[in-house]
Amino acid sequence: MLNKDMTLCISLSARPSNNGTRFHNRLYEELGLNWIYKAFAPTDLAQAIAGVRGLGIRGCAISMPYKEDVIALVDRMDPSATAIDSVNTIVNDDGVLTAYNTDYSAIAQLIAQNDLDPAASVLLRGSGGMAKATAAAFRDAGSTRVTVAARNESRGRALADLYGFDWTADAEAVTADVIVNITPIGMAGGADEHAVSFTDAQIAAASVVFDVVALPAETPLITAARAAGKTVITGAEVATLQALEQFVLYTGIRPSAEQVQAAEEFMRAQ
Amino acid sequence: MLNKDMTLCISLSARPSNNGTRFHNRLYEELGLNWIYKAFAPTDLAQAIAGVRGLGIRGCAISMPYKEDVIALVDRMDPSATAIDSVNTIVNDDGVLTAYNTDYSAIAQLIAQNDLDPAASVLLRGSGGMAKATAAAFRDAGSTRVTVAARNESRGRALADLYGFDWTADAEAVTADVIVNITPIGMAGGADEHAVSFTDAQIAAASVVFDVVALPAETPLITAARAAGKTVITGAEVATLQALEQFVLYTGIRPSAEQVQAAEEFMRAQ
Repeated sequence: MLNKDMTLCISLSARPSNNGTRFHNRLYEELGLNWIYKAFAPTDLAQAIAGVRGLGIRGCAISMPYKEDVIALVDRMDPSATAIDSVNTIVNDDGVLTAYNTDYSAIAQLIAQNDLDPAASVLLRGSGGMAKATAAAFRDAGSTRVTVAARNESRGRALADLYGFDWTADAEAVTADVIVNITPIGMAGGADEHAVSFTDAQIAAASVVFDVVALPAETPLITAARAAGKTVITGAEVATLQALEQFVLYTGIRPSAEQVQAAEEFMRAQ
Repeated sequence: MLNKDMTLCISLSARPSNNGTRFHNRLYEELGLNWIYKAFAPTDLAQAIAGVRGLGIRGCAISMPYKEDVIALVDRMDPSATAIDSVNTIVNDDGVLTAYNTDYSAIAQLIAQNDLDPAASVLLRGSGGMAKATAAAFRDAGSTRVTVAARNESRGRALADLYGFDWTADAEAVTADVIVNITPIGMAGGADEHAVSFTDAQIAAASVVFDVVALPAETPLITAARAAGKTVITGAEVATLQALEQFVLYTGIRPSAEQVQAAEEFMRAQ
């Protein structure tokens, strides 16, 4: 049963999912924290952020389409957010709002954890906000041999130029040591749900296959990469890690790997 | 477990209690509503009300010390709030905030339910916000033979003059058919916890004894009045009725008397 002393964390998204609500509340329960988490579809972003301040809401996840607009409404930008001019997390310290981007942090951590070689060639397919986070994380990990593949030339070139990378319109024309899908190809419920964003030849030529699509956890690309014996990094790992980093930023507590896994399984069991 | 589709209602108070949280959440559960209720101690009232709009919070209880300041922040005033220039409830209809005062409504209902005679003489002891709600409710029920008893002359006279009532500094000098305590005398944990705000002679001379103190449900005054065989109206009735009216305003659902009683018992079982 709820009580007056509970600390509230929220999310702001035009189309909320239950993922954050289930992940965070499950961990609060597991850790015995008197906290609750609730998703909101705000009617007005500035008023919602005023509410974060005025109601003393501790943490706030920011999703589409608010990740850029919210920058003007916070007090401080963490380097993770300035790296890509995009915010997915706000922490409220007694009315001072600090913005982070845990998507960037999560991708940076996964690059480090998998010992990806800065000298390796990298192919990034996509040009949206998550592609920017990924490109920035590779740049900051020291990668220089990076190609951005995107059909939309102006967006693709703009992203590539931002980090000194190459651009190609033809995603299937380039092979690389590390290939990364940052498009909706393979996403559950999408138009290209059953498609694989790289060719068999590209997968064969790669040593690492990274799919940023989180649902399903096993995309067709990940399945093909596993079958080919490649090192894989999944969007589910990104999603869990970024949510975990939000949890740590809000609560100051780092749950055990087992606790995180249980929360992730609960989140997915919808 | 919480989910993204839950409707949120809140309270704003400098010193929140668990009463509203327990009463409303218990009824939501009982009625199978996908709603939650959470108490807040806001850091800034205007920003908190902005948050009510921006987050689409459906309902908001207003307690001390915000009942007057919030008037400037709403869009519409219901007659229950204009009657006493004080707000204890805000309903958010798609961003349009309407302010009510369910303390006033509850007292007005109790006057009607107990068939209090407008011709009866009334003694009101107290001069705070709740005394104003009580005085307005008696005035609007047609009572004209009303005396306000308050040691503070300026506050007492101001309240009496507002409704065309008499004022006295000596609460124990006047007898009346209906005697009403609207001071903290008899309140659990207060300095005058064991005191009775009227004399035995005043109780004996009255036909109705009304104590606005809600905790305990049986104040020393109510106990004395019951022993003397008087009709009693308790502060617990006011508290439950005003919370029920808030519930109805927020949800549009009027729970059964049994459901309200169960929620009230749950609220008190802290």
